Amino acid sequence: MTGLRELAQGAKTIFIAGHLRPDGDCVGAAVASYRYLKKLYPDAAIHAYVEKVPEVFDFLDPDHTIFVQELPEEPVDLFLVLDSSSKDRLGEAQAVFDTAKQTACVDHHVSNLGYAKDNFVKPGCSSACEVLYGLMEEELIDEKIAEALYIGIIMDTGVFRYSSTTQKTMEIAGSLMEKGIPFWKYIDECFYQRTYTQTQLLGRTLLTSMRLMDGKVIVATVTRRMLEFYGAQTEDIEGIIDQLRVTKGVEVALLLHEIGDQEYKVSMRSNTTIDVSRIAVYFGGGGHVKAAGCTMRGSLHDVVNNITEHIEFQM
Amino acid sequence: MTGLRELAQGAKTIFIAGHLRPDGDCVGAAVASYRYLKKLYPDAAIHAYVEKVPEVFDFLDPDHTIFVQELPEEPVDLFLVLDSSSKDRLGEAQAVFDTAKQTACVDHHVSNLGYAKDNFVKPGCSSACEVLYGLMEEELIDEKIAEALYIGIIMDTGVFRYSSTTQKTMEIAGSLMEKGIPFWKYIDECFYQRTYTQTQLLGRTLLTSMRLMDGKVIVATVTRRMLEFYGAQTEDIEGIIDQLRVTKGVEVALLLHEIGDQEYKVSMRSNTTIDVSRIAVYFGGGGHVKAAGCTMRGSLHDVVNNITEHIEFQM
Repeated sequence: MTGLRELAQGAKTIFIAGHLRPDGDCVGAAVASYRYLKKLYPDAAIHAYVEKVPEVFDFLDPDHTIFVQELPEEPVDLFLVLDSSSKDRLGEAQAVFDTAKQTACVDHHVSNLGYAKDNFVKPGCSSACEVLYGLMEEELIDEKIAEALYIGIIMDTGVFRYSSTTQKTMEIAGSLMEKGIPFWKYIDECFYQRTYTQTQLLGRTLLTSMRLMDGKVIVATVTRRMLEFYGAQTEDIEGIIDQLRVTKGVEVALLLHEIGDQEYKVSMRSNTTIDVSRIAVYFGGGGHVKAAGCTMRGSLHDVVNNITEHIEFQM
Repeated sequence: MTGLRELAQGAKTIFIAGHLRPDGDCVGAAVASYRYLKKLYPDAAIHAYVEKVPEVFDFLDPDHTIFVQELPEEPVDLFLVLDSSSKDRLGEAQAVFDTAKQTACVDHHVSNLGYAKDNFVKPGCSSACEVLYGLMEEELIDEKIAEALYIGIIMDTGVFRYSSTTQKTMEIAGSLMEKGIPFWKYIDECFYQRTYTQTQLLGRTLLTSMRLMDGKVIVATVTRRMLEFYGAQTEDIEGIIDQLRVTKGVEVALLLHEIGDQEYKVSMRSNTTIDVSRIAVYFGGGGHVKAAGCTMRGSLHDVVNNITEHIEFQM
C-alpha cells in the first residue's frame, strides 16, 4: 500500500471523516482527499462527513457536493479517517467506522496508536494535509486539491510559524502554491480576517489589559456584559489571547472569560519555559506546555492571584 | 562571475551598504553577506554600513562587529550594495560607491536599472536575501548566515504571505530553517511582537474604529492626544492599518493620524481592485495600488468625506 490510489482501489463506497469540532487541517484534508479520490474513481460513491464545517472554510466546497450530514446505513467499502488521533473523536461516525470493510487513518498526532487497519501516521509532519500530500501523485494534484491541502498546512502551522514546520513542509507548500492558488488571499481570509464585532472586542480587550509581575504577565478579561454589548459570541474570543501573548516582555498571557457568576474560563499562553499545562492541570484543566486552559471559580482577583502564584513558582 | 566568492576574490577592502531607512531585508542581507565573505576571506577588511539598524534586528549583530557608522577615507576594492534600487538611496555612502574600484549590486526591485558594474538584479525574487542566497554556496551557509537571510525573507514577504512569495522562496526558506535556526522565535520577535504601549494604542484604535459605506470602508483615527496619553511615538502607529484591513467585508481601510491642527496623515490599504494610490496621488501623496498615503488638511469629517467620495467613484 503506497498511496491513496491503491488504498481506494476497488472500493465502491468511500466514506471520509474528520474529528469532532473540525479545524482547517481536518476540513482541508477531507476536501483534498474527496477531490483526489473522485478524480481517480469517478464512479465510486464518495462522501465526506465532519460534524460542522466552520463557515470560514465554506469556499472549499462552494457547490456543497462534498460534505454530507447523514451517515450511510449500509457498511462502506472504505472508511478514511483524517487528522483524528483516536476513534472516539469521530463522534457519530464511529458506528460507520466499526462496520466498514476497510479502514485507514491519515494523521500526524503522536498520540495516535493506530486504531485503523491501515495507518498512515507521521508525527513528524506539520499537519494531516502534509501526510496526505505524501500519499498523492503529484501530477494529479490540481488547483482545487492544492487549495485544500494548503489551507490545512497554514492553519496547523500558524502560517509556517510553529516549530512543527519543517523543510519538507515548506517544500510541499511551495509546490502547492505553484499550482496557481491565490495563497495570499487564503492567508488573509482563513487566518487573519476577523469580523467587525471581533475587531471591537479585540480592541476593548487589548485596551483594558493589564501587566503584572514586571510586565512578565499580561492579563485581560472578557466579561459576559462585554459580549452582550458588542453582540459577540464565545467563538469571537478566539485569537485574542495570541494578540496579548505577542506583547514585548510577556512570558505568560492570561485571558479570563467570564462564563458565570464568579466563574471564569482561563486561557494561558507561554512564551518561555514556563509550562502552563502544569498550572492548568493543577486547577483541573489541561493542554500543552505553551497553550493550556482551565475553568476557575472566585473573584477576578482571586483567580489572577492563584494563577500568578503558580507562575511565580516556576520562574 | 557566478557568486559572491568570485566577486570578492582578491579584494582587500570590502564595503557593504544598504539603503536609507533600512528594513529587515536590507539589514539581513548586509549581515548575511558580511558573515559569508568574512568566512571566505578572513583577512579582508570588511565593513557593513546602513544608516540606522532598527532595534528589533540588533540580535543579528550582538557583538557589534558588523556595522560601522564611519565611512572609509580610501577607495575600497569592492563596494557591495544590497536591496537598493538606485544609487541615491545609499545616502552618505554614495561617495564611497563613486570611488570604489569595483561595485556590485544585489537587488530584487524591478525599478533597478543596473547602476553598479556587476548587477545581480532579479525582480522575480521576493527579497534581496533571496537573490543573495543564490550567490552563495549552500555548504558555506551556517546558522548565523541562515538566520540573517531568513529574517530578510520573512520581513519582505510578510511571512510568506505576499504574492511575491514563490515556490523557490519556500524552498530557500526551508533549507535555511534546516540549518537549525529557531525560526518561530524570529517570526514572533521581528514580525508580531509589539510593546505594551503599542498594544494599548492598537486596542484603542480598533475599539474606536468606524465602518462606512455598508462596511466596505473602515476608518480609525489616532489623535495627538492619544499618543500623548499612552506615551506613544509616531512609529507605534505602524501596523495598525493592517489590523483594520483584515476586518471582514472591508474593501478599503483608512487610518488618520493627526499631525497638526486640522492636519492628518492618511494611510490607505485596499483589499480589492480599488487603487488607493490613485486617491493618494490626487491628494498629493503616493504609494502602491494596495497601500498608499497622503497628507490632508481639514476637519476629520472633511478628510473622510473627501476620500470616501473617491473610493465610491472607483466602486
